[in-house]
Amino acid sequence: MAKSTKHVYFFGAGKAEGRGDQKVLLGGKGAGLASMTSIGLPVPAGFTITTDACALYQKNKKWPPGLEQQVKDSIKKLERVTKKKLGDPKDPLLVSVRSGGALSMPGMMETILNLGLTDKAVEGLAAKTNNPRFAWDAYRRFIQMYSTVVVGLSKDILEEKLHNLKHRLGIRNDPDIPAESLRELCGDFKAFFRSETGREFPDNPWEQLVGAINAVFNSWMADKAVTYRKVENITGLNGTGVNVQQMVFGNMGESSGTGVCFTRDPSTGENKFYGDYLVNAQGEDVVAGIRTPLPLTEMKRLQPDAYDQLCAVRAVLETHYKEMQDLEFTIEEGTFYMLQCRTGKRSPMAMFKIAVDHATKPLLSKSDAARLVKKKYLKKAVAAAACKPIITKEDAVKRIQPVDLERLFYPVIDTTYSKQALAEAKIAEGINAVPGAACGEITFSAEAAEERAAAGKKVILVRKETSPEDVGGMHAAQGILTQTGGPTSHAAVVARGWGKCCIVGCEALNIDYGRGELSVNGQTLRDGDTLTLDGSVGAVYRGALPLVMPKLPAEYYELMKWCDQLRRLKVRTNADTPYDSERAVEMGAEGIGLCRTEHMFFDTEERRLAIQEMIVADDIETRKAALAKLLPFQREDFIGIFEAMDGRPVTIRLVDPPLHEFTPKTPDQVKRLSDATGISPAKIESRCEQLHESNPMLGHRGCRLSITYPEILDMQVTAIIEAAVAVRKKGKKVAPEIMIPLAIDAKELGILVDQTRAVADAILKAAKINVPYMVGTMIETPRAALLADKVAEVAEFFSFGTNDLTQTTMALSRDDSGRFLPEYVDQKKAAIFKADPFQSLDQEGVGLLVQMGIEKGRSTKPNLKIGICGEHGGEGESVKFCHRAGMDYVSCSPFRVPIARLAAAQAVLAEGGKSKGQSKAKAKKAAAKPKKSTKAGKKGKKGRKA
Amino acid sequence: MAKSTKHVYFFGAGKAEGRGDQKVLLGGKGAGLASMTSIGLPVPAGFTITTDACALYQKNKKWPPGLEQQVKDSIKKLERVTKKKLGDPKDPLLVSVRSGGALSMPGMMETILNLGLTDKAVEGLAAKTNNPRFAWDAYRRFIQMYSTVVVGLSKDILEEKLHNLKHRLGIRNDPDIPAESLRELCGDFKAFFRSETGREFPDNPWEQLVGAINAVFNSWMADKAVTYRKVENITGLNGTGVNVQQMVFGNMGESSGTGVCFTRDPSTGENKFYGDYLVNAQGEDVVAGIRTPLPLTEMKRLQPDAYDQLCAVRAVLETHYKEMQDLEFTIEEGTFYMLQCRTGKRSPMAMFKIAVDHATKPLLSKSDAARLVKKKYLKKAVAAAACKPIITKEDAVKRIQPVDLERLFYPVIDTTYSKQALAEAKIAEGINAVPGAACGEITFSAEAAEERAAAGKKVILVRKETSPEDVGGMHAAQGILTQTGGPTSHAAVVARGWGKCCIVGCEALNIDYGRGELSVNGQTLRDGDTLTLDGSVGAVYRGALPLVMPKLPAEYYELMKWCDQLRRLKVRTNADTPYDSERAVEMGAEGIGLCRTEHMFFDTEERRLAIQEMIVADDIETRKAALAKLLPFQREDFIGIFEAMDGRPVTIRLVDPPLHEFTPKTPDQVKRLSDATGISPAKIESRCEQLHESNPMLGHRGCRLSITYPEILDMQVTAIIEAAVAVRKKGKKVAPEIMIPLAIDAKELGILVDQTRAVADAILKAAKINVPYMVGTMIETPRAALLADKVAEVAEFFSFGTNDLTQTTMALSRDDSGRFLPEYVDQKKAAIFKADPFQSLDQEGVGLLVQMGIEKGRSTKPNLKIGICGEHGGEGESVKFCHRAGMDYVSCSPFRVPIARLAAAQAVLAEGGKSKGQSKAKAKKAAAKPKKSTKAGKKGKKGRKA
Repeated sequence: MAKSTKHVYFFGAGKAEGRGDQKVLLGGKGAGLASMTSIGLPVPAGFTITTDACALYQKNKKWPPGLEQQVKDSIKKLERVTKKKLGDPKDPLLVSVRSGGALSMPGMMETILNLGLTDKAVEGLAAKTNNPRFAWDAYRRFIQMYSTVVVGLSKDILEEKLHNLKHRLGIRNDPDIPAESLRELCGDFKAFFRSETGREFPDNPWEQLVGAINAVFNSWMADKAVTYRKVENITGLNGTGVNVQQMVFGNMGESSGTGVCFTRDPSTGENKFYGDYLVNAQGEDVVAGIRTPLPLTEMKRLQPDAYDQLCAVRAVLETHYKEMQDLEFTIEEGTFYMLQCRTGKRSPMAMFKIAVDHATKPLLSKSDAARLVKKKYLKKAVAAAACKPIITKEDAVKRIQPVDLERLFYPVIDTTYSKQALAEAKIAEGINAVPGAACGEITFSAEAAEERAAAGKKVILVRKETSPEDVGGMHAAQGILTQTGGPTSHAAVVARGWGKCCIVGCEALNIDYGRGELSVNGQTLRDGDTLTLDGSVGAVYRGALPLVMPKLPAEYYELMKWCDQLRRLKVRTNADTPYDSERAVEMGAEGIGLCRTEHMFFDTEERRLAIQEMIVADDIETRKAALAKLLPFQREDFIGIFEAMDGRPVTIRLVDPPLHEFTPKTPDQVKRLSDATGISPAKIESRCEQLHESNPMLGHRGCRLSITYPEILDMQVTAIIEAAVAVRKKGKKVAPEIMIPLAIDAKELGILVDQTRAVADAILKAAKINVPYMVGTMIETPRAALLADKVAEVAEFFSFGTNDLTQTTMALSRDDSGRFLPEYVDQKKAAIFKADPFQSLDQEGVGLLVQMGIEKGRSTKPNLKIGICGEHGGEGESVKFCHRAGMDYVSCSPFRVPIARLAAAQAVLAEGGKSKGQSKAKAKKAAAKPKKSTKAGKKGKKGRKA
Repeated sequence: MAKSTKHVYFFGAGKAEGRGDQKVLLGGKGAGLASMTSIGLPVPAGFTITTDACALYQKNKKWPPGLEQQVKDSIKKLERVTKKKLGDPKDPLLVSVRSGGALSMPGMMETILNLGLTDKAVEGLAAKTNNPRFAWDAYRRFIQMYSTVVVGLSKDILEEKLHNLKHRLGIRNDPDIPAESLRELCGDFKAFFRSETGREFPDNPWEQLVGAINAVFNSWMADKAVTYRKVENITGLNGTGVNVQQMVFGNMGESSGTGVCFTRDPSTGENKFYGDYLVNAQGEDVVAGIRTPLPLTEMKRLQPDAYDQLCAVRAVLETHYKEMQDLEFTIEEGTFYMLQCRTGKRSPMAMFKIAVDHATKPLLSKSDAARLVKKKYLKKAVAAAACKPIITKEDAVKRIQPVDLERLFYPVIDTTYSKQALAEAKIAEGINAVPGAACGEITFSAEAAEERAAAGKKVILVRKETSPEDVGGMHAAQGILTQTGGPTSHAAVVARGWGKCCIVGCEALNIDYGRGELSVNGQTLRDGDTLTLDGSVGAVYRGALPLVMPKLPAEYYELMKWCDQLRRLKVRTNADTPYDSERAVEMGAEGIGLCRTEHMFFDTEERRLAIQEMIVADDIETRKAALAKLLPFQREDFIGIFEAMDGRPVTIRLVDPPLHEFTPKTPDQVKRLSDATGISPAKIESRCEQLHESNPMLGHRGCRLSITYPEILDMQVTAIIEAAVAVRKKGKKVAPEIMIPLAIDAKELGILVDQTRAVADAILKAAKINVPYMVGTMIETPRAALLADKVAEVAEFFSFGTNDLTQTTMALSRDDSGRFLPEYVDQKKAAIFKADPFQSLDQEGVGLLVQMGIEKGRSTKPNLKIGICGEHGGEGESVKFCHRAGMDYVSCSPFRVPIARLAAAQAVLAEGGKSKGQSKAKAKKAAAKPKKSTKAGKKGKKGRKA
């Protein structure tokens, strides 16, 4: 390490030696200070000692060669820039010394403020500010911090001395302590220092500075910091940077002040300054809330020049960072200083408003810009930039995150509600399966939920777990709470489809259906008691909390339009009813990617009995007779869906779950089936018992049902095609796609495809109507993906069922994984997976199979239509994966359609807006709409450049 | 189709125009007749009309050009060869006309015998044979067959006429009808023919022949034949061949006769003629059992020349077909005719004896050979060949099938037991899970089975299904019978490991544990009643049937030695106890490929309670305390196994099944656990209920247990390594391989490998002993196979767990697939799979993943040791697949070790005895033992050439 190594980076007076992207070398804080300085923000001057210097200090237990000289040079430079001198008995330069690693690291050393004060300098400060109390309090604080943080003396003893002083004076608050008493306290502290260390408190600023810098260096290897890095799994970092910066004070009189503000309204997104200001105060006064701060309009009136400086800073910040900022500032005797800035948090509404405004409207009016330029607060170039939109539409699309979209749609507990009351009402926590909040009376059965909802009551359905028989009650409920299950359990999946608040896996619940009670953490609630659920965080509250419903801002629609113009991936929805279908179209769905036919079997008692009759049938004739009863129901369902989708493609999956999901569960249900069929209850029970499976997920379900009971397929295909014929006869368009689930073999699938076509073609021939229809399969077993080339020979389309494909590929039951999967995704423990593979597609493993499936499938059928209909079709990262993998469409719950539209657009932007890595079929499609593609491409590039 | 097309293939007088491999053109029978004729066997002459000719006839409804002339020419040739003439009034040539497709096809037309008889010829035959009764009976039969088979008259009316005749004469048996009455009957038949058809019965042999040939042609498209081909899924065949062959008669006097025999003793395999002979009789007389046949030694005495001809035929047959044959012959007035031959069925013992004899001993003694040559019955070249071994050792190895080996080991129901009594005793059929027979008293609980067995009783354990808790009782039982489950259910897998007779999925059973009864097909049996199981066919019998135990022949050991010299694949065993380990070594195991540690937890009440205590523990300390109780047991188990294996590698799998498999199941068990732990029964039950899983196969099991409860891994690794140290201290060798199950991710596995090494190394360091050990994983999830390159970075070996890999890849629960998998493998129905994928590895799908796993694994770790430990490791075709895929070893149940050794040898022979498609590591290993490899290579080649 030669002498020439640069250890210190200066910033100040509009220039910085470091850059914003040098976080590793300068630490996050040092890089930020350099960045803000560079772009012309009035940041208090100072310098940063590099993390490399810290590393060398750790290694050699002494400062590296050249560091001392560079620090001394930097101090001189700082004195020149600030026109003050360290230790000056008249107008001393005071500095802060702070640590700052590449990553934010709580547990590192605290800040040392007011360094540079000595017995003489403090008098100078008192005289200069004409505020002895301020000066002595500053000195008191410095001695206290230095003694504890740098030297390691007992915090408690010093605090006790301060406490005793106040007690003696009969004073409650620190600001009320008179200057003279503070001076005495300083003497007292120093005496303590002397007795503890055997030396005088350093009265030499250089000595103070060296001590403080070493303390920051040493803090890097302090136990708590080492432990923190270990726990957080932070590796590969050198050490901490050290930031030495001029102190500024907002409490130097009426021309001083301090404020905290947002560059836009964080609630509405409106383009106006939003924040609080205090005259003659320090930042902590604003935060502490002791004095009531003024709105910024008041500042404009009281300190118009300072206000204009602030407006200029706002223009600089937003034009540079291209984001709404949250900033802290101080005005010291009329001079404006930026202390900190960061991207500001905002409401979901504001997120869209700001993004669209940034992309379409100017930041400053021309007159405001002209005034600020005239006052020399703003450079002309910046002013010009601020008079135009500061980002592209593509940038706006990139900025929105899936979570922003989700938050836009769900009701929430009123944020103004008392935090304490909230904490008191909370009785348990579960897994936040579907966000949003819901409130209603506890109801333990689906039937009761339906009844009460029909009677106009709001209910929360509380179950150990849910099954398809509960769907009616789930739909009727405001929210669903289950004791077991994970984020992709039956309850969660069904609820997510509706965007209905749902908490699952709330293991603390102890539900007694018999007594109509639930006990949880020592409390007992009864059927009919009121609960509030917050599905966004998984919290369960006793009683009714106030809920607020969101209204979609116009900017949401605008931004989604931009997404649609960008994306190539089609977005369909998973919907099983005309109602859901219509809702999904409203959300932007371009078709149905998964219509589950089995839910339809539970709609009414009549249907339920028919399907159960089919199941308990001993012979094919009885089975066919039962199926014949279901046929008209299914046909009507499909007519409704086809009409709702108005010619958009509708992928209908043939019956998929194991038959025992449909069997009667209670003695009463058994009796009703017995009454309807004349079969004895004992025989029905015996038949139901026979259907029990050890691993139903891998059992007699999917297309296996059609292999063993071909008459089920016959009935369903008949219902679909007859419905299509009926709709066509009304002169409407219809595009059915019949999907055969759980295929594992081309021969197996071929048998069923042939059977499907035979049934369908016979109906169309008889009706003398031509309805183009497709027959395809779900790829949801590893074997089907591995042999996709052969499967594609008999399938017209593939739809990846990534829920089941994840279960089988990872040997992971989504209903059972709650017991151990949290350990696998806990980033503080094993961190085996980055995310829950049922929420975000396991791209490394399952994704490999998906890619193989697509490549192999298109190797034998190049124009194979390919989509996804697992839960992943509505998760951002997974949608992007689907785009890269070359799929034609994704399909997801209606409520996730906007997320998919967004992610599909972002996927295009991520590849520079250009079509790449696409199959021929895709490339052809892309070529068919060159305008969009080119536009996206250009903007994408521009966006990145800017 | 030109005139020159050859439609007819002649055979006779030692020459044949067709060949044995022309089954498609000539049909199976025609090709066989050509083959036998060609190799010099005295087959009655004749000719075959091709299947192509039949196809042309079907197409054009007339004989193709040239066929008539070729048939006429062939008849002339036949007359020349036989020195008889069709329709000759003195010595008529009689022929048979038979169909014969490429595949055997019951339901095709019957045979027409004695064609060529006319009103004149019958008189000639009577005179020539001096046996009018014979002649008129032959004529009667011909008219009857022709009328019904060719013309389609009513069989019943003709039979009735015969019946009435006998009734009128007061005669019971056909042979007693006098010639004159038969002549009258012929007249009667002909009159009936006339009245029914309006024409005379054809008295012209050519007309008869044309009619018969057309009838055979037409039979191909008869309803029953078309239906049969459809049902059997037979496609791609042209038509049937037509075989016209000289009739020969064994009932022409004392110099005639007929016999059925085996070229070796089919029970013992001894090299001696074995069969029955009847003087002056026809084949059907032997089969009908009306007269007592003579042993062949009698024939030697009575007809020494004919006997020597038979001996010559035997030499020709075995030197040509290189297999023991089962043949039928007839001697017509001193002339020997072969009628049929085929490879003979034999006992398992004989299979080995014959194979080894064929490969090591001459067929004929030199003196016998000389005599036969001298008598001109045998050609010199054939005689020379018969005086040497007729096959190579490699041929012998190729000949043995896995099923031959299996049958060698299992007790069987005495084959001499009355078939009728057997049929009467049979009460049900289930799935033949493990072959062999067993007999004992019905016992409904594992505990009772243990108790009774301890008291010296033989028991059959009868359960709805079995669970790991039943293992003790299963082991104690003679055989196991379950109502549910498939061939790879718990009961089947465990029983197979022991080679214990087992029938599963016997759905007809209705078990009432409470009453201690089972009812089945209307019968009720009680606890203590005797049952006999035949696991080879899945039959359940009431009462005790006589069982026979097999004794292994010396030839078995010889042949297995040859296998071991040939094979490259190592063969290990799945064994969990010292007893099983020793047994497996006796069966030829070279190590343990899978030692399941969980079975050990059930051995005693003490262990059972300890594992249950661990499971119900609320905190880590209690869990550790319970595990500490198990440690000494596990250590002792491992010591025993290591010692039994004497330095051979032992792969120990860490605990794999979900914890709920260990929980107490009955109130009594709960009480005992409560007594032992002080935990209330209610709490125990609640904890057990909590452990319930929807899909345990995909649940909290395998290495997931070690991720959530690292202390289980700690205990097990401690037990393994401490055991290894103990054995090493005794100066013995030990080679433990620790196997981590159900890995799905390299990071997951890496965490556990590191933990394993940390525990192991600490013990070895403290003991100051170096025990080389390995740490590897099972590849039993698709994800692990897909990411094998990464997994191999942290694993020293892979063992493919193809049971679970099949379940996950095919989304197929082996416990539940019994309901639909039979449809998938039913070759008469969908025929989606060639075999049950749990019995024979699904090479197309699961095999693809295995190959990917091997290739990817070796891509990052070229010397990765790779084996298989699923059930497939003991199935012939799967073992061959493992060889081709480049595995190092297979592991299987002790009883299947010989099958694996055989299949591994056959795999080498299948590739010509050469090493090919091997990884570098394999090639290196192969190079390290050049002797075996070269030898195998040479022999393989020789074998194929011969």
